[in-house]
Amino acid sequence: MNEFELIARLTRTLPTNESVVVGAGDDCAVLDVGMGDRLLLFKTDAIVQGIHFTADVPPEKIGHKALARCLSDIAAMAGTPTAAVVTLALPKKFAPEFVEQVYAGMNALAQQHGIAIVGGETTTNPGGLLISVALIGFVPREKVLRRAGAKVGDAIFVTGELGGSIAGRHLEFEPRLAEARWLAEHFNIHSLMDVSDGLAGDLRHILNASHVGAQLHKSAVPINRAAKAIARKGDAAKPAFVAALTDGEDFELLFTVASKTAVPLLDAWKQTFPDLKLSCIGKIIAGEGIKLRDETGIRPLTVHGYVHFS
Amino acid sequence: MNEFELIARLTRTLPTNESVVVGAGDDCAVLDVGMGDRLLLFKTDAIVQGIHFTADVPPEKIGHKALARCLSDIAAMAGTPTAAVVTLALPKKFAPEFVEQVYAGMNALAQQHGIAIVGGETTTNPGGLLISVALIGFVPREKVLRRAGAKVGDAIFVTGELGGSIAGRHLEFEPRLAEARWLAEHFNIHSLMDVSDGLAGDLRHILNASHVGAQLHKSAVPINRAAKAIARKGDAAKPAFVAALTDGEDFELLFTVASKTAVPLLDAWKQTFPDLKLSCIGKIIAGEGIKLRDETGIRPLTVHGYVHFS
Repeated sequence: MNEFELIARLTRTLPTNESVVVGAGDDCAVLDVGMGDRLLLFKTDAIVQGIHFTADVPPEKIGHKALARCLSDIAAMAGTPTAAVVTLALPKKFAPEFVEQVYAGMNALAQQHGIAIVGGETTTNPGGLLISVALIGFVPREKVLRRAGAKVGDAIFVTGELGGSIAGRHLEFEPRLAEARWLAEHFNIHSLMDVSDGLAGDLRHILNASHVGAQLHKSAVPINRAAKAIARKGDAAKPAFVAALTDGEDFELLFTVASKTAVPLLDAWKQTFPDLKLSCIGKIIAGEGIKLRDETGIRPLTVHGYVHFS
Repeated sequence: MNEFELIARLTRTLPTNESVVVGAGDDCAVLDVGMGDRLLLFKTDAIVQGIHFTADVPPEKIGHKALARCLSDIAAMAGTPTAAVVTLALPKKFAPEFVEQVYAGMNALAQQHGIAIVGGETTTNPGGLLISVALIGFVPREKVLRRAGAKVGDAIFVTGELGGSIAGRHLEFEPRLAEARWLAEHFNIHSLMDVSDGLAGDLRHILNASHVGAQLHKSAVPINRAAKAIARKGDAAKPAFVAALTDGEDFELLFTVASKTAVPLLDAWKQTFPDLKLSCIGKIIAGEGIKLRDETGIRPLTVHGYVHFS
């Protein structure tokens, strides 16, 4: 049983109540808690030593990553983060300075986005450092962007470049909060999520939630040069294109809009975010799954993204 | 450096924003997020295998405890919980049925209190099972009960019986949500918290936050029979009274009210909660620290509650 099968099994029976607009299964939960034209976003995420970072990573970067991952999920709903609480599970022996530096990394990113860190829990974790961050944020009631909503004919966009995050970007990435809010404010975005487990896997989440398929243009997928460098290193490495589809932790935005919106959106994007690439990588089609188009033709894409426990 | 010293060091520099009414340092954070006459409560808590439960504990009880601890913090602010997110960090090998039973324990308690579980994160934790729960809830703006607020002359009350939770109650306790809300609705409670690290340590949190001292009446402190049974077992055990003051995980309510309110409150309590003991254990006095009064006189209390890392 892999991560997604386990989650599917667990989420079937979760208790709910009248405040829930979107429960488990999207990037954030969405709750109607009586804030007028705003809805509450609620999200948790965790990183673990040996899984999400190694012992030699500078503590500030560990703290940055712990909060940034959660922020990327708020971005994936085009929301604005407000406050975070932090569970810090520490090995039996730790240096207080190390913990302070982890917090320094979190605090700097929080301040940059106006987020208050309002509490935490410290406990012992015999296995090593684990940081779990829970975040609340807000989104205008009329602007909730979900994974579901992609329509046949939509253009598929992705920000930035994909693959090779393991070379360092996964510790330093900037969550795409401003970009997602700008998209929601200026365009009729049909579906949105963040790419955290690899484009191939995450695009399928949009497709399954929206009951559609996709055709990707191989030459349009933006490949990070880190993925290319890793691919060049040895025969054991994935080809760079496969890395761009399947490496985890890109934390870029993946979204779809009506095809007629694609060109004006690209033009406006270039003016607003000149330093961040935006690529139209394909289109939504009827059916299911992902088809890949290259110079040789069209064929089903079989690779998937990163899956825990598999 | 123990848990409290580390927390003090970390909380000095936490980022804040205009939504924060109460930040880190009380039982929950309190946020003003534009809900009119209500404020948002936000809390996280974690339990770890080998620290908060052993490998032989039935998984339903692990799930119950994970959520109940967090609920006790909402009770400690006289709030009403609404929604939870869960980080489940699993050892490399686990049985899906085990995880489902952990969730069954959480779900049952959540349903009992009308709480939605709206999301979660599953990850690998090489050291064993860790569950971090984050909760949001609400409290009327005019009824926020904090640790600060105890006044000289106040009567000090505690619900239930203290000590010996390790014998089993720590896995089965019922968070005192209804009781705390009833107190807030019907009486002018000056200070409130939950007893999670032992009465001696937690009462000091109220005293320090309120800049007062306390005099406890030894004979009035309600001692759980589990603490008495453990004390009888061997010479190595703490005396039952010391256990009642210093054992962790009682999850009872500790609060202070004006002394003139004490008798009417006790009378009303007995009618409303006939099955739950409420004890007046002493009074708030000028100065600092805890003094203990017994048949031999009055002396400073030196024992403390449970402290992580110490």
